[in-house]
Amino acid sequence: MYNKVTDEDIKYFKEVVGDQYVLTGDEINPDYAHDELGGVEKMPEVLIRVNSTEEVSSVMKHAWKRSIPVTVRGSGTGLVGAAVPVYGGILMETTRMNRILELDEENLIVKVQPGVLLMELSAFAEENDFMYPPDPGEKSATIGGNISTNAGGMRAVKYGVTRDYVRALKVVMPNGEILDLSSRVAKNSSGYSLKDLAIGSEGTLCIICEATLKLIPLPKASLSLLVPFKDMKSAIEAVPKIFKSKVTPTAIEYMSRDTILFSESYLGKKFPDTKNDAYILLTIDGNSEEIVEKEATLVADLCLDIGALDVYIVDTEERKKAVWSARGAFLEAIKASTTEMDECDVVVPVNKVDSFIKYTHQLAEEHNIRIPSFGHAGDGNLHVYICRDQLDKDIWEETLRVCFDKMYQKAEELGGLVSGEHGIGYAKKDYLRKQYGPTHIMIMQGIKKAFDEKNILNPGKICM
Amino acid sequence: MYNKVTDEDIKYFKEVVGDQYVLTGDEINPDYAHDELGGVEKMPEVLIRVNSTEEVSSVMKHAWKRSIPVTVRGSGTGLVGAAVPVYGGILMETTRMNRILELDEENLIVKVQPGVLLMELSAFAEENDFMYPPDPGEKSATIGGNISTNAGGMRAVKYGVTRDYVRALKVVMPNGEILDLSSRVAKNSSGYSLKDLAIGSEGTLCIICEATLKLIPLPKASLSLLVPFKDMKSAIEAVPKIFKSKVTPTAIEYMSRDTILFSESYLGKKFPDTKNDAYILLTIDGNSEEIVEKEATLVADLCLDIGALDVYIVDTEERKKAVWSARGAFLEAIKASTTEMDECDVVVPVNKVDSFIKYTHQLAEEHNIRIPSFGHAGDGNLHVYICRDQLDKDIWEETLRVCFDKMYQKAEELGGLVSGEHGIGYAKKDYLRKQYGPTHIMIMQGIKKAFDEKNILNPGKICM
Repeated sequence: MYNKVTDEDIKYFKEVVGDQYVLTGDEINPDYAHDELGGVEKMPEVLIRVNSTEEVSSVMKHAWKRSIPVTVRGSGTGLVGAAVPVYGGILMETTRMNRILELDEENLIVKVQPGVLLMELSAFAEENDFMYPPDPGEKSATIGGNISTNAGGMRAVKYGVTRDYVRALKVVMPNGEILDLSSRVAKNSSGYSLKDLAIGSEGTLCIICEATLKLIPLPKASLSLLVPFKDMKSAIEAVPKIFKSKVTPTAIEYMSRDTILFSESYLGKKFPDTKNDAYILLTIDGNSEEIVEKEATLVADLCLDIGALDVYIVDTEERKKAVWSARGAFLEAIKASTTEMDECDVVVPVNKVDSFIKYTHQLAEEHNIRIPSFGHAGDGNLHVYICRDQLDKDIWEETLRVCFDKMYQKAEELGGLVSGEHGIGYAKKDYLRKQYGPTHIMIMQGIKKAFDEKNILNPGKICM
Repeated sequence: MYNKVTDEDIKYFKEVVGDQYVLTGDEINPDYAHDELGGVEKMPEVLIRVNSTEEVSSVMKHAWKRSIPVTVRGSGTGLVGAAVPVYGGILMETTRMNRILELDEENLIVKVQPGVLLMELSAFAEENDFMYPPDPGEKSATIGGNISTNAGGMRAVKYGVTRDYVRALKVVMPNGEILDLSSRVAKNSSGYSLKDLAIGSEGTLCIICEATLKLIPLPKASLSLLVPFKDMKSAIEAVPKIFKSKVTPTAIEYMSRDTILFSESYLGKKFPDTKNDAYILLTIDGNSEEIVEKEATLVADLCLDIGALDVYIVDTEERKKAVWSARGAFLEAIKASTTEMDECDVVVPVNKVDSFIKYTHQLAEEHNIRIPSFGHAGDGNLHVYICRDQLDKDIWEETLRVCFDKMYQKAEELGGLVSGEHGIGYAKKDYLRKQYGPTHIMIMQGIKKAFDEKNILNPGKICM
């Protein structure tokens, strides 16, 4: 059904993007065969490091004509195999398209290429006294990748997710045509929102070549609180109570002592407090020190009322660094603590987080394995890791399958979904199918067909 | 291609929803043939006033089997004919489905049926110390209608549009199947967002039967400023300057003396000031009187610096009522000032509003007609009315066509879109087609097919 890449194809691609940016065989670093979690591996036949919308368009026109599959990759920080070229063909890398094209202060808009890293965009916004609110843990992900998974991050509690900040996209269609989806305007009721379809479509519908993003004025003050509790149940139960008090924190993360200790040993850095079993880390921001302090006091008092053992104000630069660098290293730290692992990125209603975490503890006990987790208590998005440790391959694979089945089943019972922000990609397709059922999946396949009749763009992902 | 509704069909529908809720022939009020603007008229063969998701599902299963077209209507406040049954068949009215089903204070969520009116939802939220931020001018529109057009309203400047507050939808598909799109969770990266496709699809893809909406804590303080300028240019030019100052008002509306005078005569009520040619009306909200006053002072000083003639604080109940009831009556007041009119709901970048309004003045002069306008200066969404007044039918139709062509062309040049919040429906199809081009429209048609292969749901709208 697909054609293999030939010498003639390579010759054409080299003419389009330049010899040094078209790599084949041993020239391709083996890391391009997998993403950060590495659950699925496949080398592309050719790696093309594109540099412009026009190059993307030319490559796609050729690939379409020749029926060659194309998979797009940013910086490869995904966790579900979405950027792995499972059918071989072309791997198109966008990291050279890393220019910030425009800052429009009158419309509070920034226009970027897809290969700009989240940390670059975030720094650029702050330098100009703006904030780009989405704040996923992986700061070296590209914006193209963030949009492709509708990444959420820590500040979703107050500010929402990537979708809420994408005003417009310039995309290349599977047949090479260039389309503008929406515009830099604030409102849109002009037909079906193809822009919102492209967001979260993990590179299966079209290739994002430019993104027009909304910024907000940088809040003038911000404060974090680290709040220890005697156990995870008490910590998590505090969260809906905070919401009921009508304060809206920017972020509420939860963390267990285990995870903090992995992180200490991984980073070689001390965390401010490790005496207690469970912590929540809260951030509050606003437009004056005064109002932020007032809200922080309100939250601190509430936490103490409902059983918090203490409240640490994270205000010195040193403490901020210690806390946030630990939080940033959790995924890597858990990975380093085991031989192999797989992740479950469920999202459940905020007042069901406690039930879900309790269930993972129960599963860990039943199956005699470790299931550490951390995540966004304030928005119900949990990152749960099943660790292989010393298990034999067969037992590991069976245990993983059984535990995943049970966890996704549990999430569904609690009103949750398969993925909050990491996507479906290749690894979670079966669970998506199970949750949504055949009609839902058939509509997705119909949409895929409307964009990509030949199914050459990132085949084998999400619903295909 | 479609079947006519027969006596047997009627008998079946009466069994499903009850005799008194299935109306035919003279029993149907002629107002059901059109929406608020009345540009297109067509009576349905049968009007069915449904009361539950199950009833909607049963009616659709039957309509699907029998290939009868179905158009859904809320309270009929649309302006582009989206709820007009242009192919006859069934008109399904949802206003009896008007229950608020659940308030979930731990997840900041409210679940409603589609026939709940915006003003009812808004009041319910406030009674519970929450805010439902979307605030379109037409408060008697249903939430189902608001979602179907991705309505924006005044507070979009700070809080975004309806899309940003829809967490999940329960929908009935054209074949009668009931589907849940997303869930009450805060993040979602689980496949293509069918929920976001349904939002803004004007009843062409599926029928919204329940909506799970996000609320925010009610801001504790709010203040409006009415700011007169010597002319519209100076008024509008102030807006991007306010954004550059890093204050984010909740709403920024613009209004001209003409429009205010129509409104005064329509309502028989005095507006606080009508000495000047142009005004902006700003609202600022926040979590303390102090911070709101501080921001209001900042904005007021800035406005005076750049040429405002005065700044009226709208703080007494009387003044609030005078200003906001005038603003709320603009559409009706302009309608009452002429024999017939049609509307252009363009949205342009905020710093292009001035150019667009200037262009409408130029057009009015060229064609010797009145083109009053008002709208959301803070988000670039303008409501522009071409008035027939005493023109002969032929000249009116030709003038309307020419002026619309030119205005949409101008909006496109300025980076704008055909509709900001009123939708495409029946009336604006040609302009959508012109702006988006064939590929974009073909993808929309492919999506329509994925949902509704028989094209029985609201045929003849948006892209069909």
